[in-house]
Amino acid sequence: MNVLATAFMNSSPFHCMTSGKLGSHKRNLLAHKMINTKHVSNWGLQYKAPTKVNSTKLGALDSNILDQEKEGPNMVSDLGLRRMIQDGFIFQETICIKYYEVGPDQTASVETLMNHFLETNVNHMKTIGLVHDGFGSEEMSKNNLTWVVAKTHMLVDRYPTWGDIVQIYTWKSAHGKNGMCCNLMFCDCKTGEILVRASSIWVMLNKITRKLSKFPNSVRAKLEQCFVDTLPTVKEDTRTWSKEVENIDEHICKGLMPRWSDLDINQHVNHVKYIGLVIESVPKIIVENYEIHSLTLEYFRECTKDNVLQSLTSILGNHKGIIANVDFVECHHLLQIGGGGGNIMKGRTRWRLKHKKSQGSGALISSLANGSV
Amino acid sequence: MNVLATAFMNSSPFHCMTSGKLGSHKRNLLAHKMINTKHVSNWGLQYKAPTKVNSTKLGALDSNILDQEKEGPNMVSDLGLRRMIQDGFIFQETICIKYYEVGPDQTASVETLMNHFLETNVNHMKTIGLVHDGFGSEEMSKNNLTWVVAKTHMLVDRYPTWGDIVQIYTWKSAHGKNGMCCNLMFCDCKTGEILVRASSIWVMLNKITRKLSKFPNSVRAKLEQCFVDTLPTVKEDTRTWSKEVENIDEHICKGLMPRWSDLDINQHVNHVKYIGLVIESVPKIIVENYEIHSLTLEYFRECTKDNVLQSLTSILGNHKGIIANVDFVECHHLLQIGGGGGNIMKGRTRWRLKHKKSQGSGALISSLANGSV
Repeated sequence: MNVLATAFMNSSPFHCMTSGKLGSHKRNLLAHKMINTKHVSNWGLQYKAPTKVNSTKLGALDSNILDQEKEGPNMVSDLGLRRMIQDGFIFQETICIKYYEVGPDQTASVETLMNHFLETNVNHMKTIGLVHDGFGSEEMSKNNLTWVVAKTHMLVDRYPTWGDIVQIYTWKSAHGKNGMCCNLMFCDCKTGEILVRASSIWVMLNKITRKLSKFPNSVRAKLEQCFVDTLPTVKEDTRTWSKEVENIDEHICKGLMPRWSDLDINQHVNHVKYIGLVIESVPKIIVENYEIHSLTLEYFRECTKDNVLQSLTSILGNHKGIIANVDFVECHHLLQIGGGGGNIMKGRTRWRLKHKKSQGSGALISSLANGSV
Repeated sequence: MNVLATAFMNSSPFHCMTSGKLGSHKRNLLAHKMINTKHVSNWGLQYKAPTKVNSTKLGALDSNILDQEKEGPNMVSDLGLRRMIQDGFIFQETICIKYYEVGPDQTASVETLMNHFLETNVNHMKTIGLVHDGFGSEEMSKNNLTWVVAKTHMLVDRYPTWGDIVQIYTWKSAHGKNGMCCNLMFCDCKTGEILVRASSIWVMLNKITRKLSKFPNSVRAKLEQCFVDTLPTVKEDTRTWSKEVENIDEHICKGLMPRWSDLDINQHVNHVKYIGLVIESVPKIIVENYEIHSLTLEYFRECTKDNVLQSLTSILGNHKGIIANVDFVECHHLLQIGGGGGNIMKGRTRWRLKHKKSQGSGALISSLANGSV
């Protein structure tokens, strides 16, 4: 199946990634041949194919992977669910969309996609030694450092449905001097169609001072063995937030209480849950008739079970709730700790009208206008 | 690996279930030899091994399964994740516990277990033709019937942790004249240890009248082909609710708002989410220091995104919040629609002190007594 190739070019040799014929011992670096094809989405988000692979770096990464393999059989690998491909610089995980991961429209929720996004990322990082106890590599642990996610971008072409088998590919690249970019791609296993592209920026946090940290040299040396010289799958949205956007109060959902089931290993609300909380303030008529086409989420602080949150949404290009373009809706969001506790997350989403239209565009406009949503 | 055998007896031939040597064509009905060993848990919950298998029924089931297989290769089966074993009357699914499925103590949450419980049940029902479009068999659809869950029992010996490979087994049996019992067992794939036993009672709802329905004869005939004559894995808790329990108000959590991410395909709050909502009213000191050992949940009505809910918990055997037995805590729960909208669910949970004690029993008693939880 020509899976990833579809993203970049029709005849790219990158399709060999999914043929199962490449082992980490085979070093013909097909990725060198990949063509730098830039796509620009309707929202200005850009994604790029990996452009250049440093063979020295890959060589070092291969040795690392081989060391991992020596540790003994991995049951998940035995099931054919996870493997390293392309000379060990791309990690592939196969998942099946579950009944409980789909929403009312029978497709995987955006939270489900982000869950798998995080899971595959972390499994990749564990495999290549970037995650050890306490969510950092051994070198990071010595420096009291841990990984935190600073920003997430996602572009959804099609949401998978219950029972779909999806192959997820991830590779890591440098983001400036002190950031790591995790690139992901979700592909339909049967058709090879690219469903989702995503990238996220990870930085290091000092667990004692709780401040962001530069990469120490020893840590950087380890990381450089694992990075591939590529641009992110989804280009970073670097637009700044205007003062006006900071004060949005168009649609507010107050009194959001994190549940026990929202907490992760670190005792904090899992950042993936934030998108679900943000959607709580999106008008019902949008949630029911549109689906998220792309998003950018920027994380600012952790929150705990005891925080009471509020979610705020502002619809762009509209005046007093009237949607100007009913095929696509763009929103700005804030997730805050109530009572002036500050921003936890800022976000931008672009929603696309679902194929199955339950009502005409005119009805959508009037409903939003009269505030009945 | 002697997986299920551990539950029943050490030398049961039932261990062949996991050897991968049994196909649906092999009809030696090893299950006949299974020994009826009854276990009684500390909470009075009983679980039993399948005792008697009707070979006529199994024959009919086998044909059904073979028909399914003729439809073409199933990608999930190809991955070795799902298969029918024991002459086609037991369904096996292999899962891997994900990072986002574990809670602060690094073990799978009870909601995660119930998600997989539901998923495996439904996948089994799909495989043998008990679920078609609209969540019922073809015969059920003709009669406007759908499945609903009436009651769930679960007994957890050990919670799996992130990365654990778990094999889930399920089989169906009759529950009275108009109910189906779904039996489940979670086993550690490496050690064969039984982690969780569960059973749930499913009944039929008329989609038009929204009332429970008897099994029509045509539907019953289909079901009888799939049932195995066994007692439930976890014996039904048939204790009635006293008037006193109905009026519990010891620990209340009001204003619980279902989120978009709580909704399932049927536009209602997924019943698995109820346990998470119930736990919201359990005192923090219990949630942080204990884990659910067993539960019984009884479902009464559906609820939607628009309902504001309240969760109520009463701790048994205690007086004004003082826990009498600090190794195990028993609770009664109600989940209600606020403003007198009626009960959605009633439940009983039994909590076991976690191995890793963060504070002594004395501290737990005093904290509960002074209301600081």
